[in-house]
Amino acid sequence: MPETIPENSIGVVTPQMLHFDQPLALECGTTLPAYDLIYETYGTLNEERNNAVLICHALSGNHHAAGYHSMEDRKPGWWDSAIGPDKAIDTNRFFVVSLNNLGGCSGSTGPTTINPESGERYGPDFPIITVEDWVHSQARLADQLDIEQWAAIVGGSLGGMQALQWSITYPDRVRHVMVIAAAPKLTAQNIAFNEVARQAIRTDPEFHDGHYERENVLPERGLKLARMLGHITYLSDEAMGKKFGRELREGQINYSFDVEFQVESYLRYQADSFVGQFDANTYLRMTKALDYFDPAGKHGDDLSAALRNTTAQFCVISFTSDWRFSPARSKELVRALLDNDLKVNYAEVTANQGHDAFLMAIPHYLNLFSTYMNRVANEGGF
Amino acid sequence: MPETIPENSIGVVTPQMLHFDQPLALECGTTLPAYDLIYETYGTLNEERNNAVLICHALSGNHHAAGYHSMEDRKPGWWDSAIGPDKAIDTNRFFVVSLNNLGGCSGSTGPTTINPESGERYGPDFPIITVEDWVHSQARLADQLDIEQWAAIVGGSLGGMQALQWSITYPDRVRHVMVIAAAPKLTAQNIAFNEVARQAIRTDPEFHDGHYERENVLPERGLKLARMLGHITYLSDEAMGKKFGRELREGQINYSFDVEFQVESYLRYQADSFVGQFDANTYLRMTKALDYFDPAGKHGDDLSAALRNTTAQFCVISFTSDWRFSPARSKELVRALLDNDLKVNYAEVTANQGHDAFLMAIPHYLNLFSTYMNRVANEGGF
Repeated sequence: MPETIPENSIGVVTPQMLHFDQPLALECGTTLPAYDLIYETYGTLNEERNNAVLICHALSGNHHAAGYHSMEDRKPGWWDSAIGPDKAIDTNRFFVVSLNNLGGCSGSTGPTTINPESGERYGPDFPIITVEDWVHSQARLADQLDIEQWAAIVGGSLGGMQALQWSITYPDRVRHVMVIAAAPKLTAQNIAFNEVARQAIRTDPEFHDGHYERENVLPERGLKLARMLGHITYLSDEAMGKKFGRELREGQINYSFDVEFQVESYLRYQADSFVGQFDANTYLRMTKALDYFDPAGKHGDDLSAALRNTTAQFCVISFTSDWRFSPARSKELVRALLDNDLKVNYAEVTANQGHDAFLMAIPHYLNLFSTYMNRVANEGGF
Repeated sequence: MPETIPENSIGVVTPQMLHFDQPLALECGTTLPAYDLIYETYGTLNEERNNAVLICHALSGNHHAAGYHSMEDRKPGWWDSAIGPDKAIDTNRFFVVSLNNLGGCSGSTGPTTINPESGERYGPDFPIITVEDWVHSQARLADQLDIEQWAAIVGGSLGGMQALQWSITYPDRVRHVMVIAAAPKLTAQNIAFNEVARQAIRTDPEFHDGHYERENVLPERGLKLARMLGHITYLSDEAMGKKFGRELREGQINYSFDVEFQVESYLRYQADSFVGQFDANTYLRMTKALDYFDPAGKHGDDLSAALRNTTAQFCVISFTSDWRFSPARSKELVRALLDNDLKVNYAEVTANQGHDAFLMAIPHYLNLFSTYMNRVANEGGF
């Protein structure tokens, strides 16, 4: 291992690509004739093929959840704190699959992909994909990998929603579901924040109704605003206070509109680094997937009824300072699971990091996570 | 009274204007050689001149706090629920003065005013005004009106900050201070939301570094985004949920980026109606006044020390669901007041309306408000 890669990392990983040419009928009414999914795997699929774990990513996530892409890579995958040898999702025991969702912008088919029918990028013509659509596409990925049943499906935030949807759509194909820092549907406030982010992007004059690539521009201003706003909702008031307080970058107020407070500097930095990495059309679609997710909606707003066919065991985790998806939202899910006499572990972790806590190396959280996943492995006998 | 004007209203009111030609030295280092303030008064100043109440407005407020501007006016002033005959601030007993703050865009000198030195609008050259600057300008208004001491100074949100600053800057000139839904300083999260609003306006291509009027355009997109974002922080999650829930405007999901959820429609409507009424340069400066406000900062971050010369009696009110300026923030102030053995009434009103609760006709709140103001009047013997 080089100096840059820590010993408890899965090490250098290589993304793989699979092509799917069986048409996928989407909830919006469109059918995608074919698509590609990019994914990574960590660990080894055992002979019984019963040790596979699916990782579902959140709004701006991708398939690169753990390890490094090269020896020179400075940062590991987004959930490296939880996935690797002897980590919560122990790659010595589990075979972990992590994909970039359909409609994403990290390699799977999405708005930035060339549409083979037109020879141009899909751009704004790419359909709006729902959580249920993702679950279907992930099931096809499982088919290709010859994984009949996942030992566990694990996700945080929008990823937790996918994990939950799996237990409804394919109850026989998942034994354990971990729903972390998620909610069974968005509130009006959640939707409102998404709408401001969408308006920021869509009213940017360089958005060109989504055809910005054709015009050789990017709706940078809009995407930056969306990202800044997102960041505020990912952190708690307390976490921001601890991190930045009212600290001034130059030690004094300058009575100007340049960066004065450290928190302003942080937001602008986050926004600047996001713009080169993420596609605006994908961002818009991810927020729509969040807004639309509402399994209870198809069952008369009765979440318990929505879970009637679910057989998986659940581990639900929330964080005290998460105001985007507060513990109360996790408890709604827990109650509905209990209504169905399902096995549920629920933990509310005391953490001041806000929604982002699910990505962080918080000992109590990672201990809970490990404990649950060890049980999954022990139960599976691997 | 015409049908449109309710009986318990102060009725038709006429704004007045005062010119000030004594130069005003601002905290930013600039000196304004002269300026105008527009204001309204409700009720009658008594012979002893001791029944005057100053109303301080919040970010997007103005001088029109109560009554109607004409018989045809469909909406009363912004605090008509609290100001009028037999209302909390009873105009049968009090003489109420409500002004548009310096730097505003409703008639007082501000960015939209013609700068007599250049013959052009001030625009972005208008200085950043602080809460302390406002207090000085308000003291000059009091001088002109021959009001030596206010019976009370009352404000909500940014208005509450001005009321608090009065007690520090001019302790002898105010007997009672009402600080409603405010905080002794912003948190990093509060500043972060303001920064996103500012970036939305300032990165709008039609902002033209603040010279949009010269270009005959308006940074509409930016100002709309700022307003939408503001609205989310004025309402609680619960209030938004009760008002809109996940209700769909057309009863179904359309898989499009047009308005789908009612909350999206509400935000867009609020944004559209704001754009024609409010100046972007003023908006930017109002958010800076909020960010900079920090009386403790000048006293080694010791709020108690900042209040050492204060002699006023206080009534501090917070609302349970206000997450912009939560009850905890009001309690910081209450503790500092108690440290100085000042007389304090504090109430945390159970209300689900969020920060906007301070503008609403909530019976428990208005009862507290009336009770306190009646005491102020009784004590003054009028």
